Amino acid sequence: MTRRGRPGYDLESLLAVAVKLFNERGYEATSMEELSRKLGITKSAIYYHVASKDELLRLAVDRALDGLFTVADEATAIEGPAIDRLEFLIRGSIKVLVDRLPFVTLLLRVRGNTKVERAALARRREFDQLVTELVKQAEAEGDVRQDIDPSVTARLLFGTVNSLIEWYRPRGGLGSAELADAVCAIAFDGLRTR
Amino acid sequence: MTRRGRPGYDLESLLAVAVKLFNERGYEATSMEELSRKLGITKSAIYYHVASKDELLRLAVDRALDGLFTVADEATAIEGPAIDRLEFLIRGSIKVLVDRLPFVTLLLRVRGNTKVERAALARRREFDQLVTELVKQAEAEGDVRQDIDPSVTARLLFGTVNSLIEWYRPRGGLGSAELADAVCAIAFDGLRTR
Repeated sequence: MTRRGRPGYDLESLLAVAVKLFNERGYEATSMEELSRKLGITKSAIYYHVASKDELLRLAVDRALDGLFTVADEATAIEGPAIDRLEFLIRGSIKVLVDRLPFVTLLLRVRGNTKVERAALARRREFDQLVTELVKQAEAEGDVRQDIDPSVTARLLFGTVNSLIEWYRPRGGLGSAELADAVCAIAFDGLRTR
Repeated sequence: MTRRGRPGYDLESLLAVAVKLFNERGYEATSMEELSRKLGITKSAIYYHVASKDELLRLAVDRALDGLFTVADEATAIEGPAIDRLEFLIRGSIKVLVDRLPFVTLLLRVRGNTKVERAALARRREFDQLVTELVKQAEAEGDVRQDIDPSVTARLLFGTVNSLIEWYRPRGGLGSAELADAVCAIAFDGLRTR
């Protein structure tokens, strides 16, 4: 799209600043007034790009969700045992989390107070359901332990993945692939030496 | 302590309502005004119990932290291999999380904007350090895999534990002991069948 208004703010950079602010102060606590101050542009310059604060939120959480569902589609297309699809999904989700950290952080803090938030939560549930199905299949194929309820296993797995937003910072630490190695090593084979 | 003011509000029940409100709306976004409306008592009736909103926060996060550090002290006192102390610490922390869910939830959302919050974060770091030390010891004793950095292992372990606040609800589901069984089974022995 053509960029208008003050130089430096296309939709992408506006979204980046908005998401940073939402993550710092909370989505509800942040006003368009504050956002415009932070950006150093008028509110109408913001409204040139988006119709509302809600639309900013929708665009932001969709960055995260679209990334996760692309990985889910790729995982589903993999032939072979379900445990491989499950591992692919975990690794891919960690890559999305690392590559789109502010967007995934915002998504995971959404509480369901608005229509946009409820839509995001519904997509998250759809994703969780898909993980549970993969765990069930992998159990049925005899590759995953059967002593834990598949939905609990799915929640624990993605609980571990999602908890990365609390401490993982891309700079000066593990890369996304090494992080995925660590998560999968523990989740699939356990901490205990054999 | 002697209860004064409107019946039904001693410090304990006041704290419970405050923590619920902080968790729903965020600590910063909640005013003493709102809290007094929610309680149906005057602000001065609240100030009879606590000096400030900050003190409410401190009391609340200390419920969580004191529980966790009691478990940590008990774990440290256990003789034998470090991996047993680590498992005890995980199980005990899950019990604290389940028994004091609103307090632990509030603690895990603290961001460090005030002195009370920074003190809570410092105690959390101290706890994390203790977990890392246990992982290191268990590695040195040959019981825990050595291909993952102990601080990453510690973060992943407690990432899984802490993520329980996002979905675990005490009613109509797993009890705290079964939840701990599931977490420890996956974390120590892995999902994969052998």
